[in-house]
Amino acid sequence: VVEQPFSHVDGDGKLRMVDISEKQATRRSADARCTVLSTVGPATLEAVTSRVDVIHAARLAGIQAAKQTANLIPLCHPLNLDDIQVNVSVTARGVDVESTVVTVHHTGVEMEALTACALAALSIVTSLLAVDPLAAVEDLVLMRKSGGRSGEWGRLVGQPQ
Amino acid sequence: VVEQPFSHVDGDGKLRMVDISEKQATRRSADARCTVLSTVGPATLEAVTSRVDVIHAARLAGIQAAKQTANLIPLCHPLNLDDIQVNVSVTARGVDVESTVVTVHHTGVEMEALTACALAALSIVTSLLAVDPLAAVEDLVLMRKSGGRSGEWGRLVGQPQ
Amino acid sequence: VVEQPFSHVDGDGKLRMVDISEKQATRRSADARCTVLSTVGPATLEAVTSRVDVIHAARLAGIQAAKQTANLIPLCHPLNLDDIQVNVSVTARGVDVESTVVTVHHTGVEMEALTACALAALSIVTSLLAVDPLAAVEDLVLMRKSGGRSGEWGRLVGQPQ
Amino acid sequence: VVEQPFSHVDGDGKLRMVDISEKQATRRSADARCTVLSTVGPATLEAVTSRVDVIHAARLAGIQAAKQTANLIPLCHPLNLDDIQVNVSVTARGVDVESTVVTVHHTGVEMEALTACALAALSIVTSLLAVDPLAAVEDLVLMRKSGGRSGEWGRLVGQPQ
Amino acid sequence: VVEQPFSHVDGDGKLRMVDISEKQATRRSADARCTVLSTVGPATLEAVTSRVDVIHAARLAGIQAAKQTANLIPLCHPLNLDDIQVNVSVTARGVDVESTVVTVHHTGVEMEALTACALAALSIVTSLLAVDPLAAVEDLVLMRKSGGRSGEWGRLVGQPQ
Amino acid sequence: VVEQPFSHVDGDGKLRMVDISEKQATRRSADARCTVLSTVGPATLEAVTSRVDVIHAARLAGIQAAKQTANLIPLCHPLNLDDIQVNVSVTARGVDVESTVVTVHHTGVEMEALTACALAALSIVTSLLAVDPLAAVEDLVLMRKSGGRSGEWGRLVGQPQ
Repeated sequence: VVEQPFSHVDGDGKLRMVDISEKQATRRSADARCTVLSTVGPATLEAVTSRVDVIHAARLAGIQAAKQTANLIPLCHPLNLDDIQVNVSVTARGVDVESTVVTVHHTGVEMEALTACALAALSIVTSLLAVDPLAAVEDLVLMRKSGGRSGEWGRLVGQPQ
Repeated sequence: VVEQPFSHVDGDGKLRMVDISEKQATRRSADARCTVLSTVGPATLEAVTSRVDVIHAARLAGIQAAKQTANLIPLCHPLNLDDIQVNVSVTARGVDVESTVVTVHHTGVEMEALTACALAALSIVTSLLAVDPLAAVEDLVLMRKSGGRSGEWGRLVGQPQ
Repeated sequence: VVEQPFSHVDGDGKLRMVDISEKQATRRSADARCTVLSTVGPATLEAVTSRVDVIHAARLAGIQAAKQTANLIPLCHPLNLDDIQVNVSVTARGVDVESTVVTVHHTGVEMEALTACALAALSIVTSLLAVDPLAAVEDLVLMRKSGGRSGEWGRLVGQPQ
Repeated sequence: VVEQPFSHVDGDGKLRMVDISEKQATRRSADARCTVLSTVGPATLEAVTSRVDVIHAARLAGIQAAKQTANLIPLCHPLNLDDIQVNVSVTARGVDVESTVVTVHHTGVEMEALTACALAALSIVTSLLAVDPLAAVEDLVLMRKSGGRSGEWGRLVGQPQ
Repeated sequence: VVEQPFSHVDGDGKLRMVDISEKQATRRSADARCTVLSTVGPATLEAVTSRVDVIHAARLAGIQAAKQTANLIPLCHPLNLDDIQVNVSVTARGVDVESTVVTVHHTGVEMEALTACALAALSIVTSLLAVDPLAAVEDLVLMRKSGGRSGEWGRLVGQPQ
Repeated sequence: VVEQPFSHVDGDGKLRMVDISEKQATRRSADARCTVLSTVGPATLEAVTSRVDVIHAARLAGIQAAKQTANLIPLCHPLNLDDIQVNVSVTARGVDVESTVVTVHHTGVEMEALTACALAALSIVTSLLAVDPLAAVEDLVLMRKSGGRSGEWGRLVGQPQ
């Protein structure tokens, strides 16, 4: 997957955006995920996270954040997004967040998928913080990408970090 | 620190913003942190993270993200921010990010500090991703808060999660 | 309530923002409302609007829009908001949207309340449009305001328009 | 015109964005309209609305709002816009607002046209409110759309609501 | 006026935001100006700049830009603005832009006034560019500031640059 | 280069956006530049501008500003950007800023290049202002454009203004 090692660094060692104008506009997608870990007991956790509107707010926060990726991360390109899905599921120890972002453009949407997960998770943390100030966002990672010159890439489940 | 358990939930069970208009406008601050873990070897990691402009870009991304918190997280209040500090330091296994946010207002800035860390970390991930698609953001947590009715709160170092 | 007739027009007839720096920072609130009228039959309308996530999305869209008021309406002042409530209720013929916005500042939040209602309503229209392209937003009005020099004002229910 | 009934609802009943990445990038346009009704007498109404800069501000507010549609309405896709026209005309009883938005993309711009009208109208309300707190935005509706699989659709003039 | 030399640099030489939370919230204002120089003849220049809507659009672009200052310039603090005035006047050789911004807060609004002028000028350049690609923005400077510990400061007219 | 004289003015004399939906989506680029002039002595100037993080912050501010162009200038079209480069170099009398912006779209990116330079320059002014309130942004001009029907255009070096 190492298409352009140090692609953000030019000959003079300055951080720079990558020129994508000569790349193909193809369908590209990326999946990301993270987990919100809670330290409160299962009953309290459930009291917060079983609330359907906490979950809905997190999904919408993730969708809206994906659209802001280029405004939040300097080297990301502003681009149209054709699909943004964010799923939130409650587990025994916290909340799992998964995202998929799709575009038809000259570059991938890995950072958009990661940004969607990060803000969906922080939206949940907002509701948890009053009862669990120790709540943590963990394992925010890219899971899969497809499209573009480097083609399909996937993280192995259970891969050590 | 449990000032308002379930403060975001009203009597009818709908998610709602908390009315802070009757609270005191006092100086409030919050610290947060997270780590970017890398799976590439130390030499490659250093090649990316020793670059001062990667670090600077991450600090500025964190600062600018803190200002967008209320636009990214639905239940957060739009408010003036009086200080935003983001520090980034390279370690043997990745990059540590720390933030401090300060306001003089009716509510705290915990989410602003967490959002600053999240985006500073993702800015670093942007530069790492081409050489390390397994890079992960871990341990995004609140470290300390002060001000307001609940006063000072601090996470114990080494506290289990 | 006619505190400053033509307050947005200066002596030379140019549209201008009002200088509020000498006004009192007092608690001010405003309520607004509107209705989404649907032309599809009650069963189809219910199939869309009974969905709790359509309602939640509308409430969050309204809350987030209120925060953008000064960026959307040139003469509005950028200001902190201390509370934003948006309620959505389904009726026989459509959907009612109500908002309340609160600030402690030098000016009122009437436009913030109206903007919250407008975008909450348009969020519902987004979901309705595929089955009812004739859906309409009606009666977007200010209902009440309080605080500031002009004090309390309320629209009479049933007042002709 | 019912191309995708309930297109925003997936099998599990969760609100979701529609994946448009497989649709054709064709020229699509949409027209919308609304009316600002005033309760003040014609002379006072004219004193406000005859001002060319009130009208210009409303047109620009509508144009700028159309560009923010995806940031304001969660299920809308961020996309390039190729044209945004907003026209404002004063009538005996208030102000009529009309918009046309055009894109060459995988989805239509109905919500962009509606959002342009809503904010152009609210920009006028801002100037009216000091003299007419009863001012109302009415009949915010889609008038016409073209392009895409469903082709041309138009609302009949005088159609009952 | 040298209140805080190198206030943006901390002991370790890293760019940082200044903590303003201990400063007084007083009324502060700033004026800035710039000029759009045109190379086309007076008749063509007049054909563009005599248009009242070009002037109005520039004034509104300046007002809206001032509100975005903290989002555009990393070290600026997000703050409420109590007044933003932008004036545009046509001269024999181009267009003069002047701005005044006011806040009641812990820091000044010099950058807000400069940002307002810059974007008002660029809005005019947008209309000029098709007939005069050589159009230039010149002399974008702070003219005056008041409030805060350093008090009143003014640039002398005709001061060499 | 006068492709569309008065292209922003319709038959009725109202400012309007140009419909670009029928234009070719071709690679288009634009270069702009400006200078920050300082009145402080060379040693003080160097103390500020030799700081690599002041330079980095300016480059990133310019990149992020280019992405906001359509939100800042009413008649600009929201569009994807495929590359944004901002270079900052210190001279004896101040700081030179140069930008290049690239898109593959129906319209050019001249205003994006100018906006990038303006905000990169103002980011430097932010750091200079405490020691040099007389600092000025000068000669903000378009240097070159390519692509589209009008093809290549370049400003002659040393061309009188």
